[in-house]
Amino acid sequence: MTPLTTLDPIVSLCKRRGFVFQSSEIYGGIGSTWDWGPLGVELKRNIKEAWWHRVVLERDDMEGLDAAIVMHPKVWEASGHVEGFHDPFTMCTACKRHFRADHVNGTACPACGGVLSEPKPASLMLETFLGPVRETALRTYLRPETAQGIFVNFDNVLTTSRRKIPFGIAQIGKAFRNEITPGNFVFRSREFEQMEIEFFVEPGTDEQWHAHWVDERMRWYGDLGLSRERLRKRLHGKDELAHYAKACFDIEYEFPIGWSELEGIANRTDFDLKRHAECSGKSLTYFDEKKKEHYVPYVIEPSAGVDRSALAFLADAYHEEEVRGEKRTVLKLHPDLAPVQVAVLPLLRNRPDVVQLAREVHADLRRRRSGGGTLRCRYDDTGSIGRLYRRQDEIGTPFCITVDVQSLTDRKATVRHRDTMVQDRVGVEQLSEYLEGKLGEVGAARDGKGA
Amino acid sequence: MTPLTTLDPIVSLCKRRGFVFQSSEIYGGIGSTWDWGPLGVELKRNIKEAWWHRVVLERDDMEGLDAAIVMHPKVWEASGHVEGFHDPFTMCTACKRHFRADHVNGTACPACGGVLSEPKPASLMLETFLGPVRETALRTYLRPETAQGIFVNFDNVLTTSRRKIPFGIAQIGKAFRNEITPGNFVFRSREFEQMEIEFFVEPGTDEQWHAHWVDERMRWYGDLGLSRERLRKRLHGKDELAHYAKACFDIEYEFPIGWSELEGIANRTDFDLKRHAECSGKSLTYFDEKKKEHYVPYVIEPSAGVDRSALAFLADAYHEEEVRGEKRTVLKLHPDLAPVQVAVLPLLRNRPDVVQLAREVHADLRRRRSGGGTLRCRYDDTGSIGRLYRRQDEIGTPFCITVDVQSLTDRKATVRHRDTMVQDRVGVEQLSEYLEGKLGEVGAARDGKGA
Repeated sequence: MTPLTTLDPIVSLCKRRGFVFQSSEIYGGIGSTWDWGPLGVELKRNIKEAWWHRVVLERDDMEGLDAAIVMHPKVWEASGHVEGFHDPFTMCTACKRHFRADHVNGTACPACGGVLSEPKPASLMLETFLGPVRETALRTYLRPETAQGIFVNFDNVLTTSRRKIPFGIAQIGKAFRNEITPGNFVFRSREFEQMEIEFFVEPGTDEQWHAHWVDERMRWYGDLGLSRERLRKRLHGKDELAHYAKACFDIEYEFPIGWSELEGIANRTDFDLKRHAECSGKSLTYFDEKKKEHYVPYVIEPSAGVDRSALAFLADAYHEEEVRGEKRTVLKLHPDLAPVQVAVLPLLRNRPDVVQLAREVHADLRRRRSGGGTLRCRYDDTGSIGRLYRRQDEIGTPFCITVDVQSLTDRKATVRHRDTMVQDRVGVEQLSEYLEGKLGEVGAARDGKGA
Repeated sequence: MTPLTTLDPIVSLCKRRGFVFQSSEIYGGIGSTWDWGPLGVELKRNIKEAWWHRVVLERDDMEGLDAAIVMHPKVWEASGHVEGFHDPFTMCTACKRHFRADHVNGTACPACGGVLSEPKPASLMLETFLGPVRETALRTYLRPETAQGIFVNFDNVLTTSRRKIPFGIAQIGKAFRNEITPGNFVFRSREFEQMEIEFFVEPGTDEQWHAHWVDERMRWYGDLGLSRERLRKRLHGKDELAHYAKACFDIEYEFPIGWSELEGIANRTDFDLKRHAECSGKSLTYFDEKKKEHYVPYVIEPSAGVDRSALAFLADAYHEEEVRGEKRTVLKLHPDLAPVQVAVLPLLRNRPDVVQLAREVHADLRRRRSGGGTLRCRYDDTGSIGRLYRRQDEIGTPFCITVDVQSLTDRKATVRHRDTMVQDRVGVEQLSEYLEGKLGEVGAARDGKGA
């Protein structure tokens, strides 16, 4: 198919099938805030699980954390966000709309042509107040990044986990930014979910660890099915580096809207720990038992977005094909990410014996397995088989199992493969094993371990 | 052991082992806000997974959702929160501390004996502002409950999922309340995580569904190991019912601080959908195809807290025992909830061949299994075996595997059972199967399915 040049077909699919809804839609919506619907929440869960397994549970050098969204305002003074986390904005004196001053070309309002005001800085942090009375309340902020929750807990985690450097702390959670002109669907929104790692290393080993993490994170996206030719890493020029960073790589993905940042991986040096030590008066050093010396670790920060990753996985998976003269829309999602992995469909929904067998097959496949895993399995009989297949293709279900009249006598069902549309006839009792094998194969082939 | 009468030993264990830290601790903390440390985040993940599997993935009548925290302010006008979600507070004119007026006995300040001011209502919602300039910003709130995100998406979910009533929508997410006097560790905090279901039913069937959900939720806590004699349901008296509720059951747990609410299960009638239809001008009715009639569904709301559940699971699991004259502290957590399920320990950490075999055993057990599940597995060699066992007992690890010198020749390792301290000798190649079996057994026995 011709590559997409717009997000429109994806936005439309997301709304139509229940991946993403505009937030507070019945009240006219709220700018650039999104609610994840039944399928979207499963996709996001699968992305977060894949990340957590890879960076926490399957590594020997990582601890998890879940810090609060509303922290003490001193955290944001120390981090530099209160002073410096601003975008310049301008307002049209005629239509009163706001724009990012650095995104407006020329001097006229892009909406109505009116005169724009002088640019002023606007804080990107959302304020809030703790305490029953405004006068005595503690004025603070919703975190604009999860990272600082990790830095302020560095010593707590170090002490309780008895870790030695190098080790990292990983966290998944919501962050909020008062973007002036957000947009491009879930690519940039006011409320979003981050997956961040702060990986603490000995100064001098930081460049090597930086390279490790850039490779490892590139690999993760590829393993979960993103086309490797649409992924690239890009080193920041000196002029675009944040003040705390020694170096930064962006992992970029070629979205339908062009190459854009998918994940930033910065070498933040010892900037944050030193700032928090200074501002809190607490020592945030590490004692190297072998070298008998204290030092402030350097930190490598792979910072990914759940919503943005979800958009990339959706965009990459989206295909329109022509099948026997008709358009087929199919999401070729990695089976680990697919909201539904197996759909069980009765060919005839008016035959109670066929329906009963299909329901039995469904109940059997869905049963939680010994390893703690569950096949994400759906039963559906709300349409003709052609319609049911189209629906499952659109939501990215790798396998459909159809139970028909013949199944009643030969105890076999038809397994249809999403990507090839090939159909296999498999014994009802063998379905579970068959699917586990196939799911494993697809996963292994995609992540390059199959060769 | 004598039942606990205070949370202190649990608070102390949580801090010592890295379950829970005070939020922003290096800056003196922030009132009643908590960060979940490396073990706490795993415990919470496991609770949330157990809930999601049970109420979403293993049911045929539920859809998931993940709505935004910051919604349109009209949502909170319609729901009644702007007008009515207040607590009465009073301030001491001498020491300036705030108290819940309905929690203070008498007329003097409980802290300094000073004179208290007249009680006034204080909103429990945290305000925030969207937009770069305060004057033109949209004033809104952090959600004080996840429920309303479900109601405003009712029609979106209904349409895209093609559900028929009865069906429910489930959601897990953060909520925020500006509590005046929160307390009791994570039992009541300003920022907390909810697991809420809105289950939509035909009016007239609501009482029967209410009973179903009370039973089902009671069963869930029991299945995950809460002592059934410390669980009870309590019907709200007419005087304590919220204005929207026809009836409400609390599931209460006997915490060390006494019987307290673990989960509320309310029959909210059609109050919320009607209010949102009225305020938004959108129809939020359901069309019953068989009866050919439109109606506004009633809703049953099982509303649980992740943090509060975690506290109950920790309190119930906490045991102090005397073993050979020494105190043993052990968390008898259900294996599905234990942050670490298997610890692999080398008996001699200075013998490279023992260490190598232990590391191999660990790597093998941790490998993600075909079902998508992973054994949560840790390698630890940072102490003597006695000390390592004590540590694993304290964090609730059901099984420790010890590799010793003999293992090098007989290819067997010692499996120690947390609760009984019984030790089995098991072939290294059989460990995975052995553990899966044992984990299944414990789970089945606890959830009453083993009989």
